Amino acid sequence: MNCLALRYGDDILVIDAGMMFPDAELLGVDIVVPDFSYLQENKEHVRALILTHGHEDHIGGIPFLLSLMNIPIYGTAFTLALVERRLEEHQLEEDPDLAEVEPGERIEIGPFQIEFIHVTHSIVDAVAVAITTPLGVVIHTGDFKIDPTPTDNRPVDLHTLADYGKRGVLLLLSDSTNVDRQGYTESERAVRPRLEDCFRRAEGRLVISCFSSSIHRLQQILDLAADYGRRVAFIGRSMTSVTEIAHDLKLLEVPDSILLRPQDVMSTPASKVVAVVSGTQGEPMSAMSRVAVDNHKHLSLRPDDMVVISARIIPGNEKAIYRMIDHVSRRGSDVVYGSMNPPVHVSGHASVEELKLMLSLVRPKYFMPLHGEYRQLSKHASLAHSVLHHHLKGSFVMECGEVLEFDHTGARKSGTVSVGRVCIDSGSVDEVVEDIVIRDRRHLSEDGFVLPIIAINKQTGKSVTLPEIVSRGFVSLEDDPELMQNARQVVVKTLDSSTAEERSDWGVMQEKIRVDLRRFLSKQTSRRPLIMPVILEV
Amino acid sequence: MNCLALRYGDDILVIDAGMMFPDAELLGVDIVVPDFSYLQENKEHVRALILTHGHEDHIGGIPFLLSLMNIPIYGTAFTLALVERRLEEHQLEEDPDLAEVEPGERIEIGPFQIEFIHVTHSIVDAVAVAITTPLGVVIHTGDFKIDPTPTDNRPVDLHTLADYGKRGVLLLLSDSTNVDRQGYTESERAVRPRLEDCFRRAEGRLVISCFSSSIHRLQQILDLAADYGRRVAFIGRSMTSVTEIAHDLKLLEVPDSILLRPQDVMSTPASKVVAVVSGTQGEPMSAMSRVAVDNHKHLSLRPDDMVVISARIIPGNEKAIYRMIDHVSRRGSDVVYGSMNPPVHVSGHASVEELKLMLSLVRPKYFMPLHGEYRQLSKHASLAHSVLHHHLKGSFVMECGEVLEFDHTGARKSGTVSVGRVCIDSGSVDEVVEDIVIRDRRHLSEDGFVLPIIAINKQTGKSVTLPEIVSRGFVSLEDDPELMQNARQVVVKTLDSSTAEERSDWGVMQEKIRVDLRRFLSKQTSRRPLIMPVILEV
Repeated sequence: MNCLALRYGDDILVIDAGMMFPDAELLGVDIVVPDFSYLQENKEHVRALILTHGHEDHIGGIPFLLSLMNIPIYGTAFTLALVERRLEEHQLEEDPDLAEVEPGERIEIGPFQIEFIHVTHSIVDAVAVAITTPLGVVIHTGDFKIDPTPTDNRPVDLHTLADYGKRGVLLLLSDSTNVDRQGYTESERAVRPRLEDCFRRAEGRLVISCFSSSIHRLQQILDLAADYGRRVAFIGRSMTSVTEIAHDLKLLEVPDSILLRPQDVMSTPASKVVAVVSGTQGEPMSAMSRVAVDNHKHLSLRPDDMVVISARIIPGNEKAIYRMIDHVSRRGSDVVYGSMNPPVHVSGHASVEELKLMLSLVRPKYFMPLHGEYRQLSKHASLAHSVLHHHLKGSFVMECGEVLEFDHTGARKSGTVSVGRVCIDSGSVDEVVEDIVIRDRRHLSEDGFVLPIIAINKQTGKSVTLPEIVSRGFVSLEDDPELMQNARQVVVKTLDSSTAEERSDWGVMQEKIRVDLRRFLSKQTSRRPLIMPVILEV
Repeated sequence: MNCLALRYGDDILVIDAGMMFPDAELLGVDIVVPDFSYLQENKEHVRALILTHGHEDHIGGIPFLLSLMNIPIYGTAFTLALVERRLEEHQLEEDPDLAEVEPGERIEIGPFQIEFIHVTHSIVDAVAVAITTPLGVVIHTGDFKIDPTPTDNRPVDLHTLADYGKRGVLLLLSDSTNVDRQGYTESERAVRPRLEDCFRRAEGRLVISCFSSSIHRLQQILDLAADYGRRVAFIGRSMTSVTEIAHDLKLLEVPDSILLRPQDVMSTPASKVVAVVSGTQGEPMSAMSRVAVDNHKHLSLRPDDMVVISARIIPGNEKAIYRMIDHVSRRGSDVVYGSMNPPVHVSGHASVEELKLMLSLVRPKYFMPLHGEYRQLSKHASLAHSVLHHHLKGSFVMECGEVLEFDHTGARKSGTVSVGRVCIDSGSVDEVVEDIVIRDRRHLSEDGFVLPIIAINKQTGKSVTLPEIVSRGFVSLEDDPELMQNARQVVVKTLDSSTAEERSDWGVMQEKIRVDLRRFLSKQTSRRPLIMPVILEV
């Protein structure tokens, strides 16, 4: 949920505006975005939003920021295309002001000169930004790795970074994700032989799940498919739309007639198909999760199929991902996944030696680690001191909302501004596009909340009694026994229409119940209480 | 939650009776044990319980099994000592019948001859069992690795396994935990140089968190402490009691006068102390979690202290563990943890090459992988076929409750028996010992449930309004406004008496509120509703 404000006098630049998916602890919400109230209070000073790359944790908050202030957005072609795709799902009052930039380009906004610097990352078209301010140069790396042999032959622009370093940089803000990893992160090219091994071994259908924005990875899959005479079906909403965007922008080369429509997958000989499916993180409603429980309309796994999870496990998603892999194993298919040695995946973030190189090239006076948990920020700060010694005047491990202030005498922490998380209850990713409700939990009392409580028999997977529904502050339900009765029936229907395997997976059931009940209550009452299903096994 | 029944005619042997800690999804319960109803229905046929080793997932269910039937329990000295410790917390009607056995020993129970075979694992005194039945020999490996250089110089008894293999084995049941790992698992001895590196580098106190049952690991820490002139304090209830047991059994050698009382840790020079603290998994109420948020009465971290997490991350615990490590980082202390390269930990389970060795030595006719998720069992079964080829007549990947039937013509799956999970709501580990209530969720309606709902201000960590309490089926609370008011005050008090860091950690707060509210309601009403705190950030 990355978002940083750079302020000089009365001019504010915002760098990235991300979202995150909620912890299991944050029941009943779909996504979480930053609380933009500092920006809202200083609305007249906010000049622009600068984007480093198109991952959701950097752009997902944009629709909510734009609903507060229509500021110009600067980013590279692919990044802005992904922003446009996000914005299409929302009805904004004004047309967004999207300004495309190219790596190497410089722009001027108020007192800031901004240069975009090409970096390598797991998504294409990623940049670092160098911002020249009256007090000195600030370099923000964005997310990066230093891949000497990227698949598109466009390495990091080390020369420009070196040039800034030579002339003097006030502050470096750098990606800390992999500060715990020794050595260098492998090149994206290292994935090819491992993927090729899967193409060589797969007897039936080859099913690969990866992030839809991993264009380099998708290109390697398309190339191998052409070599091995398999046609490619993209399955899942984000997979379809992001590959179309990348193809339009000529970032993804799709060989003639290699594409297969999802609905033709099962009627094509198994050994002639590779299905690329979204949902690497075991998200309950994703295409891959549906395939795993044999509940996808276009793809049904067979024992001689091979399934490859070509992505990292985002911390916190382990249980959901392994549950999905277990379901795939039950289909009898061979599954190649993360803990395999070596994995069919490489990280998009710099390891220690690359972080040292970044510090050495830029050699800033001050350092602020970004993009990591406290333990990682703290290690990255120590690393900076060990690399730059006395050249480094200070490093600052910042928690969300803390302010770092610079003047001619130096830098210091100076208080905090109001930040936090805002929970959003949107339509599920696979639902038809609908209005998204920004739900600040402060306003919970307006719509109240509803807890459907379902006792499921562990053996049969069936509910043992009619579901209980507890609600608070949602008057419509409390005062209307008929509505209550119908709501309970909605839950029963959802349970009955699920497969035995779905019913054995609490995550899936909670999500399905939540989606169905929300749709019902929203239609009946035009209100959207927070819905938190509680499932009890008996 | 391991538990296996071996039945020949009217005689049943039970092998292991474990427990597990609940998923985050199973709100409001402390531990989960197997549903023993199949054994209860066949009570008069159950001859004995055989234990392979003393880990909780193999012995934790014993108090609940014994409350149903007082059968004799066979195990090695350390295993039985841990069982006794567990049983002391419960008031059983009859005295338990514990029969100590030694590796190499053979016993006869009904139609079964049982031989205990020494294996290496992360706990001492672990055994495999070879059970000779009228139909052939069944070998159950228990949890094992094949450590050629164990720290106590007692390697796996490969000769006895080979001997059985030579004479012919009907069925092998083998540990599948690390079937995803290539090569060999490192020897426990590989940890010593990495631990020594920490002893060499630590300037202030050295704080090491490991499992209290990892006696080999504790021995290495004690040896290094003697070499480096540090005294050792064991902190945490399980750490204290398990080390005492191991010392009494002469499994842990404690050099003279090396022990330091926990209350003397802070008054001893920092460079002369190593504190060994329980709670590697970020359990909210554990000693290590309290130390991390600077809320432990005997240990307060300083910036020049070094904290070492010498344990694996049990899948599902990632968030809690990393949150704990982040808190330690905030204290300024250096933290050495799992993703470090190389980690200060080795696994206690066999990797692929060791699993192949076990299969090759025992060369069973039939194979049933144990101890793993479906994906791992399924891989282990394929591995068995690739090692034993035509010698192997069949392998069976079994889900909980499935029955594998043997007769003179062969083996086949034959239906299921009733199994499942029973949720237990005990006192928290650090509370004074109290009666444990077995809470079958079927009986939920008897005591009902209570959901305290707390809105916490993200900035201040304070609750913004008086907590709401929603309850169902817990009449005392619903009919008594004064009790309700007092219950809300209990929650307020818990919040107020917590540190800011605890309040920023939802897992900790949910657990604290649950414990305090349960104590209050239990005292006031003598009833124990299920308590599920819901915390909302605003």
